[in-house]
Amino acid sequence: MKVSIIGATGYGGAELLRILHHHPQAEIVHITSESHTGKKISELYPHFRGIYDLELESFKDIDRIGDDSDFIFIALPAGHAMKIGLALESKKTRIIDFGADYRFSDVKVYEEWYGIPHEHRNASRIYGLAELYRDEIRSAKIIANAGCYTTASILALAPLVKHHLIESDSIIVDACSGISGAGRSPNLGNHFPEMYDNFKAYKVASHRHTPEIEQALEDLSGEKITINFTPHLLPMSRGILATCYANLKPDVSKEVINAAFVKMYGDEKFIRLLGRGGYPETKFVRGTNFCDIAWHHDLRTNRIIVLSAIDNLVKGAAGQAVQNFNIACGFDENTGLDSIAVYP
Amino acid sequence: MKVSIIGATGYGGAELLRILHHHPQAEIVHITSESHTGKKISELYPHFRGIYDLELESFKDIDRIGDDSDFIFIALPAGHAMKIGLALESKKTRIIDFGADYRFSDVKVYEEWYGIPHEHRNASRIYGLAELYRDEIRSAKIIANAGCYTTASILALAPLVKHHLIESDSIIVDACSGISGAGRSPNLGNHFPEMYDNFKAYKVASHRHTPEIEQALEDLSGEKITINFTPHLLPMSRGILATCYANLKPDVSKEVINAAFVKMYGDEKFIRLLGRGGYPETKFVRGTNFCDIAWHHDLRTNRIIVLSAIDNLVKGAAGQAVQNFNIACGFDENTGLDSIAVYP
Amino acid sequence: MKVSIIGATGYGGAELLRILHHHPQAEIVHITSESHTGKKISELYPHFRGIYDLELESFKDIDRIGDDSDFIFIALPAGHAMKIGLALESKKTRIIDFGADYRFSDVKVYEEWYGIPHEHRNASRIYGLAELYRDEIRSAKIIANAGCYTTASILALAPLVKHHLIESDSIIVDACSGISGAGRSPNLGNHFPEMYDNFKAYKVASHRHTPEIEQALEDLSGEKITINFTPHLLPMSRGILATCYANLKPDVSKEVINAAFVKMYGDEKFIRLLGRGGYPETKFVRGTNFCDIAWHHDLRTNRIIVLSAIDNLVKGAAGQAVQNFNIACGFDENTGLDSIAVYP
Amino acid sequence: MKVSIIGATGYGGAELLRILHHHPQAEIVHITSESHTGKKISELYPHFRGIYDLELESFKDIDRIGDDSDFIFIALPAGHAMKIGLALESKKTRIIDFGADYRFSDVKVYEEWYGIPHEHRNASRIYGLAELYRDEIRSAKIIANAGCYTTASILALAPLVKHHLIESDSIIVDACSGISGAGRSPNLGNHFPEMYDNFKAYKVASHRHTPEIEQALEDLSGEKITINFTPHLLPMSRGILATCYANLKPDVSKEVINAAFVKMYGDEKFIRLLGRGGYPETKFVRGTNFCDIAWHHDLRTNRIIVLSAIDNLVKGAAGQAVQNFNIACGFDENTGLDSIAVYP
Repeated sequence: MKVSIIGATGYGGAELLRILHHHPQAEIVHITSESHTGKKISELYPHFRGIYDLELESFKDIDRIGDDSDFIFIALPAGHAMKIGLALESKKTRIIDFGADYRFSDVKVYEEWYGIPHEHRNASRIYGLAELYRDEIRSAKIIANAGCYTTASILALAPLVKHHLIESDSIIVDACSGISGAGRSPNLGNHFPEMYDNFKAYKVASHRHTPEIEQALEDLSGEKITINFTPHLLPMSRGILATCYANLKPDVSKEVINAAFVKMYGDEKFIRLLGRGGYPETKFVRGTNFCDIAWHHDLRTNRIIVLSAIDNLVKGAAGQAVQNFNIACGFDENTGLDSIAVYP
Repeated sequence: MKVSIIGATGYGGAELLRILHHHPQAEIVHITSESHTGKKISELYPHFRGIYDLELESFKDIDRIGDDSDFIFIALPAGHAMKIGLALESKKTRIIDFGADYRFSDVKVYEEWYGIPHEHRNASRIYGLAELYRDEIRSAKIIANAGCYTTASILALAPLVKHHLIESDSIIVDACSGISGAGRSPNLGNHFPEMYDNFKAYKVASHRHTPEIEQALEDLSGEKITINFTPHLLPMSRGILATCYANLKPDVSKEVINAAFVKMYGDEKFIRLLGRGGYPETKFVRGTNFCDIAWHHDLRTNRIIVLSAIDNLVKGAAGQAVQNFNIACGFDENTGLDSIAVYP
Repeated sequence: MKVSIIGATGYGGAELLRILHHHPQAEIVHITSESHTGKKISELYPHFRGIYDLELESFKDIDRIGDDSDFIFIALPAGHAMKIGLALESKKTRIIDFGADYRFSDVKVYEEWYGIPHEHRNASRIYGLAELYRDEIRSAKIIANAGCYTTASILALAPLVKHHLIESDSIIVDACSGISGAGRSPNLGNHFPEMYDNFKAYKVASHRHTPEIEQALEDLSGEKITINFTPHLLPMSRGILATCYANLKPDVSKEVINAAFVKMYGDEKFIRLLGRGGYPETKFVRGTNFCDIAWHHDLRTNRIIVLSAIDNLVKGAAGQAVQNFNIACGFDENTGLDSIAVYP
Repeated sequence: MKVSIIGATGYGGAELLRILHHHPQAEIVHITSESHTGKKISELYPHFRGIYDLELESFKDIDRIGDDSDFIFIALPAGHAMKIGLALESKKTRIIDFGADYRFSDVKVYEEWYGIPHEHRNASRIYGLAELYRDEIRSAKIIANAGCYTTASILALAPLVKHHLIESDSIIVDACSGISGAGRSPNLGNHFPEMYDNFKAYKVASHRHTPEIEQALEDLSGEKITINFTPHLLPMSRGILATCYANLKPDVSKEVINAAFVKMYGDEKFIRLLGRGGYPETKFVRGTNFCDIAWHHDLRTNRIIVLSAIDNLVKGAAGQAVQNFNIACGFDENTGLDSIAVYP
């Protein structure tokens, strides 16, 4: 398959290049960057020296890029993918978008949280969290990759919500992310000396991943769900750990909980169930497409605490995109993604 | 005042030595270590070279140490302080204990969570969280320093609990700590390559600080309170950030919340209120006795999220001990503690 | 090829398991650990969950392991490999040793620096630094992997020494390594809080890699070479950067220097020449078998400064071992090693 | 003494504020920032909340600031201090400059390495490395703080150079610094995800601290000295370790070396001699004005390796400035500087 990457110079785009190097079925035909047009990708990312010699183009001639490509991966800030999706509507090119433009079934939620009028309201799109929407992904024209925090959060809670094991108004997601999630543009908040040896919360009760988590959980449960989501910044580059809290409904046994997770994920290649009492660590999934999940039942409060760990740039971005690409193409879902964490 | 430190070679004891260096009223007469008796403290902690030339003694002759000391600081593993407290019961020496032996008014809670029979059940002791128990601390024989996580958690929630602004069964404390909290004994879990660039939860629903937080909150509210407490390990040496969740009671206004914090902490030297919408960072309090507190009200869920940051070895241990020492001696509470974070 | 790993639970052994997962020609038949016999490797390294289900055996029955294996990789402390090599001397099994037992052509040098009497003095062995000894590796019975610091140091200096461009008594290697180089056994020096946010030199003028670097440089130059080698510990897990100094001989032009590097490494798959004025970074090679090399000519002092970066566990250990395995088997040298750094 | 800080919002200026908080003889009258005029310093550095409520002014009215101040500390980029020095030439205000404008006795060296024409060529100034120029500092009008790398390097080598124990053309300084040395302005090179878990050299054979080190060493020895200086960036915020190499002259005994260090530094408050075979660590001096020094004699090469550790923002900048201030005022040199590293 011929693929192009629109916005290849952010961390997500660069990670996609890393993964596609190991994908036998993908041929990269175009990579773009508006601010670095004409440069080679290895000038911006010297770790690609000797591996990628590709030159960055502009995406202004998106028609030509679209004609050349079976798939286009888009890794741009909010508001840009919708323009590309619209421009390519009549072409057979399929799109996998890393951003939020196509994530919401109710466009008004997007417009409210992102503050951008939507220009492609009737797009044929699917929410691309493979473990939940695999069948729809197979034939989708536009696949909207789930966000990084949302991937960890939804996967942690999905079995409980789907089987109505928890009180729908009791869900709290407390999550911590490495700093690569904030992108490659330098600013004071991400200046090395400021965040080294430091830890803080940010965007409490206001992060844009909140409605995205809610949408997926509502879709699973059929109920209205409003959650608390609190992101934090870890002094490290990669990795997300989500600690999810919910009140169990009365008389939910540990066997029922266990069965819910096993039923939903027992056959999933990229979900590793550590079971009741387990402890995922971000380092165990770093550089991989795994989502490690464990849960704890606090008998004193009858709450369940679910822990899930992903690499925000892999399962939370580029790896998920390749997983979706594999599904959409009918390839083995593991193609190009069969990697082990570089440990320690 | 003549002071001695029993267990001076752990991180808490060493931090106490650092702080006392700036305390004009404290003269150190004995420091002890059972495993390093006879060594100089600067052999174990070379950053003390040129500053402290003290020799480590055994605490076996606790009678003599007690006779020589107005105050004894104890920084030993659970189960040891009670023996010392008992041995010194008839002396005028006062005790400030870093550990848990004297923290619980109900000795059975201690015995249940720590698995150690209590040998000094009728001790005259007070829970030494200065902002809550200042008056009792002034004259106490034995002052039980609050734990590190508990200090951050209780201080964050106290105004809300005291004024009955939150539902008492809805409290969740999600906290992250630097690794010095686990002490100076090497083990695989704290081996540098294992925890560098890593993040994980541990002791979910089972950490011993849980009943300690509950005890203080119950004391403030008069109600039975059962909480969830989830600790995590951060890839850094020092600092705790507690993210505390609770459901607000109906119709609690932002003014009422604000007033509760200001009333309780407006005159406190070591509590810095960042107010509604603020963001404490562990780096802002590193090496200091400050507890920085901010809160967020999520109108969508009617939950309040309180954030509090401390240095686990200062406000969470040695600084708190010196604050208690100052109160107990009638000194200015700030004596020896007037420091600014070493930033960045 | 059937391969076994003796000492699979150190960082080097675990890294070898990671790399072999991507090697189509290697089948792992035995992995051993004396202290964890009977456990599964994924119990000790949870990042292997779902990937490796292998059980650790003892290497006591080395005869059987030898009979079952075409190649044996040994990752044990100094003094053990020689016993295994001796035991397997008459078998056709070939050995790739991560340790120092077989690195020295003059056994007395080994005995002097390692303090261990050699028990396999007449072994048929070759120093396994592929870029220098490729031809000999093809048919060697025992291949002695170069050390981590030594790999970076020798590769940096080899072209200059071989072409006699530098004064042989002027060589200084100042090198910094991540902490995984010290192994997985916890001790105070590698306890997280001690080394986090810290930097220090160690074993100045006494590190065992010194004679190993000298041996290779002497072999290239035909002259006696005595160097200074100073190792330092970086507060990170992986990566070595060597900064190598030498006085250039009179009238050595930049073209001659450049040609020396290009001639020696122009066709090497794993050496990336960044050229005059370049700056290798450890992060660009992390998790890969690359050695990135650049050099600077200081006209004021007529010294050359060569910089080289490797991942100590890959090019400095397990990756080098697989490279040697590929050479020894006649496979493409890149087999299983075609990876890109996980960046950032 | 009334003091003002010109350029208070960089890391050096902020560190000076931290230190002056503990200085009983210094009253801060003005702090300035051109880009943040009108803001409070605690808005830019929230760790100052509750401690400093000062408002940032412009330094445009330098006459008035000069009239109000006994001492002015300048922490500005190269080229600005000379203008202020010139403007205040006729006033009694004394100046302590963190920058390079007044460091060179030969103005042409400054102009060559900094590329800025000097506008205050005949200034009455002294190089403010207290251990070497204490007497001159007492009465100087303008005191030029030594640079951070230079402080560590010169202090390490001074006894050897002064007593002519080493070959003057053999000196190599290999130094590593935390990233705060590069200042507070964000750029890609100091963006957290780029430098976390990374290590690299920079400005090899071209760093501006090179001629400054040479000047001081020449001043001590009376000989022409040309050195190699190689800086590296450590993935941490603070701290410099310099590893200095030189060839010993023939027959220099260990007693002579030892005596040279003790004679020069035996009475120095801020220099801690760890002696032959010692190992300074950056963490032992973090946040303090100490310079820890140790040395190793390699008998195989007859080279001496001197290790020195400082905190680049304290002994390498703000602490050194306060030390100079104390000397210039006739205060105890330790005033405001009697601190212990926050360890671990």
